[in-house]
Amino acid sequence: MKELLYIDRIKNILSDSSYLGDDCAYFSSDIFKNKGLFVTQDSLVEGVHFLIDYITPYQLGQKSMNVNLSDLAAMCAKPVFVTISLSLPSTINENFVDDFYRGVNEVCNQYDIVVAGGDITASDKVYVSICAVGKSIMKYSVSRSYAKSKDVVAVTGVHGDSAGGLRLLCEKRKINKALIDTHLNPSAQIIKSQLLAQAASHNFAMMDSSDGLGDALYKLSVASNVKMNIDFQNVPVSKDLKDVFPKDYKNLVLWGGEDYQLVFCMSLNDFEKLDNKKFFKIGVVEETNSNPAVYINDEGKNVIINEQTFLEKSYNHFYTKEDKR
Amino acid sequence: MKELLYIDRIKNILSDSSYLGDDCAYFSSDIFKNKGLFVTQDSLVEGVHFLIDYITPYQLGQKSMNVNLSDLAAMCAKPVFVTISLSLPSTINENFVDDFYRGVNEVCNQYDIVVAGGDITASDKVYVSICAVGKSIMKYSVSRSYAKSKDVVAVTGVHGDSAGGLRLLCEKRKINKALIDTHLNPSAQIIKSQLLAQAASHNFAMMDSSDGLGDALYKLSVASNVKMNIDFQNVPVSKDLKDVFPKDYKNLVLWGGEDYQLVFCMSLNDFEKLDNKKFFKIGVVEETNSNPAVYINDEGKNVIINEQTFLEKSYNHFYTKEDKR
Repeated sequence: MKELLYIDRIKNILSDSSYLGDDCAYFSSDIFKNKGLFVTQDSLVEGVHFLIDYITPYQLGQKSMNVNLSDLAAMCAKPVFVTISLSLPSTINENFVDDFYRGVNEVCNQYDIVVAGGDITASDKVYVSICAVGKSIMKYSVSRSYAKSKDVVAVTGVHGDSAGGLRLLCEKRKINKALIDTHLNPSAQIIKSQLLAQAASHNFAMMDSSDGLGDALYKLSVASNVKMNIDFQNVPVSKDLKDVFPKDYKNLVLWGGEDYQLVFCMSLNDFEKLDNKKFFKIGVVEETNSNPAVYINDEGKNVIINEQTFLEKSYNHFYTKEDKR
Repeated sequence: MKELLYIDRIKNILSDSSYLGDDCAYFSSDIFKNKGLFVTQDSLVEGVHFLIDYITPYQLGQKSMNVNLSDLAAMCAKPVFVTISLSLPSTINENFVDDFYRGVNEVCNQYDIVVAGGDITASDKVYVSICAVGKSIMKYSVSRSYAKSKDVVAVTGVHGDSAGGLRLLCEKRKINKALIDTHLNPSAQIIKSQLLAQAASHNFAMMDSSDGLGDALYKLSVASNVKMNIDFQNVPVSKDLKDVFPKDYKNLVLWGGEDYQLVFCMSLNDFEKLDNKKFFKIGVVEETNSNPAVYINDEGKNVIINEQTFLEKSYNHFYTKEDKR
């Protein structure tokens, strides 16, 4: 089927296709109301980020959107529009495209987002690349470099479930639906990001945990040049994960990745305005006289994330057989 | 090599890497100065849009940029920033990434564009997807649907050379460097787009000829519901193309694609303000009482592009062996 016939089908699926039709989409300055804009782009590649036998086209549409919206959430930005590049083997039929865009449209409706353009091309594997643009919703700003001494270190939810679900899928052991669903249907923390924006009375540090909790904590430490003391017992972990992976769950919590939660460092005063059923304190920020590092206390046992352990453990899509994860 | 090490190398290559470092890049509203913004995204896939043996990484960086900037040029938008998603087989080394980004940076410097983000992931084939954002540079607007009766139909340059160069590469006949260079190093018509914006005294119709001149003419006719009369003898064609492909050059001019010129319909009054060495009148727009169509007169012989011929001829990345081009 030709690209232009695909585009006609996609226009019929999207709730708002009014921005499609020219070489570019146009947004008048009104839509940003003199607010700054945020932009991010991330890709999902078949065989690297997902396995085509384990995810439906609808789920892939939803997940591709949420992966990108998570980066907007990490900056307290409200999503406004996306552009979507989809590449497909010629063996895939138009129902795949329809279902993919139904998944995209579901997320668009949830947060009032417009699909503003993109393309469909041929390829050997399924490949999705989305650019997401959002606008500012608070007068303070967010950066990885804003963590400071005495800040609370906190997260928006459980870690490790997505990686646990992925492992079950890869091992063809579909023994826990909750873990698998978390992997296939992640949700960007758009709503909690908006609650954080309301609570903030100054700039604060945040990023998402797309590459794992350990990765996020260490990157925040380095960008802010601070030390963090984390109490592992305060990190929210699901009973499912502990039950299915009793020996290895701590590794999945810290280094599994694809959690799409928010990890942030904020003054105690602002943190206490938040609902403690939705936001979880896991540690504190301290000054450092030496290198940035994350000290994780786990029932008296200490684990340190420094440059060396980070490079060994951190998420890497380029691993080869010789690499260790 | 890990994504974060790649990112460090890329930061060293880019003239301005100040927008990289957080989950999203942020642009204050000042950068758009209350102008509307334009957005577009296009991808280049190894084996579909380019052959890795025939294009250098540097050329691929330049071409990926120009393909996207061409869509901004088609809307008279000034490029402001891009995000870039690059996927690579693990067999490709870091020199590829360095050279690719040197090519990107060359184009950024040419038009004062910032790389605002993106990602690097693994994949089986090289895959590039760029989202380009620009701002308005005139008070009138451009759309495919704005062509009207008595408008001049015009182009910014020669057509067919890129497809001729591609054919030579595919047939391993490197007998004409000019054609091959046009294919490997296209230039978006950013400067001519700005000249058009200066000449315009009202809205006008335009698109780029990325999918071929015939494709652009027919799409403009359909979107504007008009008829076009084109004199093929007035379409700029290079002597190289006629010499190398004496029998088939007309087909390459109309349907070859990847020309990245601008095709526009504008009042005679505005058109006459333009330099006739840079902009070429190839026909006129007429009202239609029946279906939109393009009538091409070639030394007394008439060719009609209507819905049927368009679907047969138009550019299709999804063609299979059974399809006819």
